[in-house]
Amino acid sequence: MSKKETLGTHVVTQIALVVKDVNKTAAAYSKILGLPMPEVMITGDPEAARATYRGQPTDAQAKLAFFDLGQVSLELIEPLGGDSVWQEVLDEKGEGVHHIAFQIKGTDEVTAALAEHGIPVIQQGHYTGGMYTYVDSEPALGVMLELLENFDTPNRAS
Amino acid sequence: MSKKETLGTHVVTQIALVVKDVNKTAAAYSKILGLPMPEVMITGDPEAARATYRGQPTDAQAKLAFFDLGQVSLELIEPLGGDSVWQEVLDEKGEGVHHIAFQIKGTDEVTAALAEHGIPVIQQGHYTGGMYTYVDSEPALGVMLELLENFDTPNRAS
Repeated sequence: MSKKETLGTHVVTQIALVVKDVNKTAAAYSKILGLPMPEVMITGDPEAARATYRGQPTDAQAKLAFFDLGQVSLELIEPLGGDSVWQEVLDEKGEGVHHIAFQIKGTDEVTAALAEHGIPVIQQGHYTGGMYTYVDSEPALGVMLELLENFDTPNRAS
Repeated sequence: MSKKETLGTHVVTQIALVVKDVNKTAAAYSKILGLPMPEVMITGDPEAARATYRGQPTDAQAKLAFFDLGQVSLELIEPLGGDSVWQEVLDEKGEGVHHIAFQIKGTDEVTAALAEHGIPVIQQGHYTGGMYTYVDSEPALGVMLELLENFDTPNRAS
C-alpha cells in the first residue's frame, strides 16, 4: 500500500480528561487508585509549542498531570487560557473525557488519510521530541482522537 | 489493611462509548483502525442479567461490539430500551465516552470503599461468569468507572 488509509496502529496509549482543577482531580484519582500524587507540569511555552488551533496560531497552554494505568496513561488537562480545543471542550461539555491517543508515524500521511474519511485536523502543536494532532473524529467515532508522533531524529523528516 | 480503601488496581481494561447505531460506529472504527468488523452481540436477557438501575430492577438491554486496542478493549454500546445508565448518558450528553473499566476483586468491598469517598453505585448486573458495577464517579473523577469482577468459581463467595 503506497498510501496510508488507516492510523497504522490500533494500540491506544492515552485517555485524557479536561478538568477545571488538575490538582483537585489528581488528588481524587490518587486516593481511589492508591497511587502517589503525580507531578503537575505546564505545556511548553508558545514559541516551543508552535501550536495551531483551527488553522490559526495560538499561545494556549495547559496544566497536565499523568497517571500510569498500565499500557495506557491517564492525562488530566487544565486549560490555562488561549484558544484551544481543551478550553472549547471544557466550555461546551464541562469536565470529562477529551480524547484518546494513539502513537503514530507520519503525521502528514495519517492526517491526509483521515481527511479522506471526513475527519479534519482541529489543533496541532509540538512538545520536546515530537508533535501532537487533535482530529475532529467525534461525529464518526464518538470521541476525539489524538495522534502522537515522537521523532526519531532531532530534525523532522516529513 | 483489613479494609479496602482503593480499587485495588490501577490497570484500565476498557474504554466504552455509548452510540446510537453500533453497526455504523463499528464500521467507522473498522475503517480507521484497519481492523475487521467485530461481531455485534446483545447483553444477556433480563433474567440472567438481574440488573438494577438506581436501586430498581431493570430489564434494559444493549447491543455491544468490541475492538482490541491492545491491553484495553474499546466497547461500543447501543441501548435497546429499558431504564439504564446507557440510555441516560445517551439522552443527556449524546454519543461519547460512557465509562472506563477496571477488573477488580470483591465488588461489595470496593463499592463500600468508593461509597466512603462519596461515589455511589448507579447500576449493577451480571454476565456469564461475572458482574459489572457502574459508579457515579463523574463529579470526583470526570468520568464514570465500571468495576468488572469475574468470578473464579461458579458460585460467588462474596
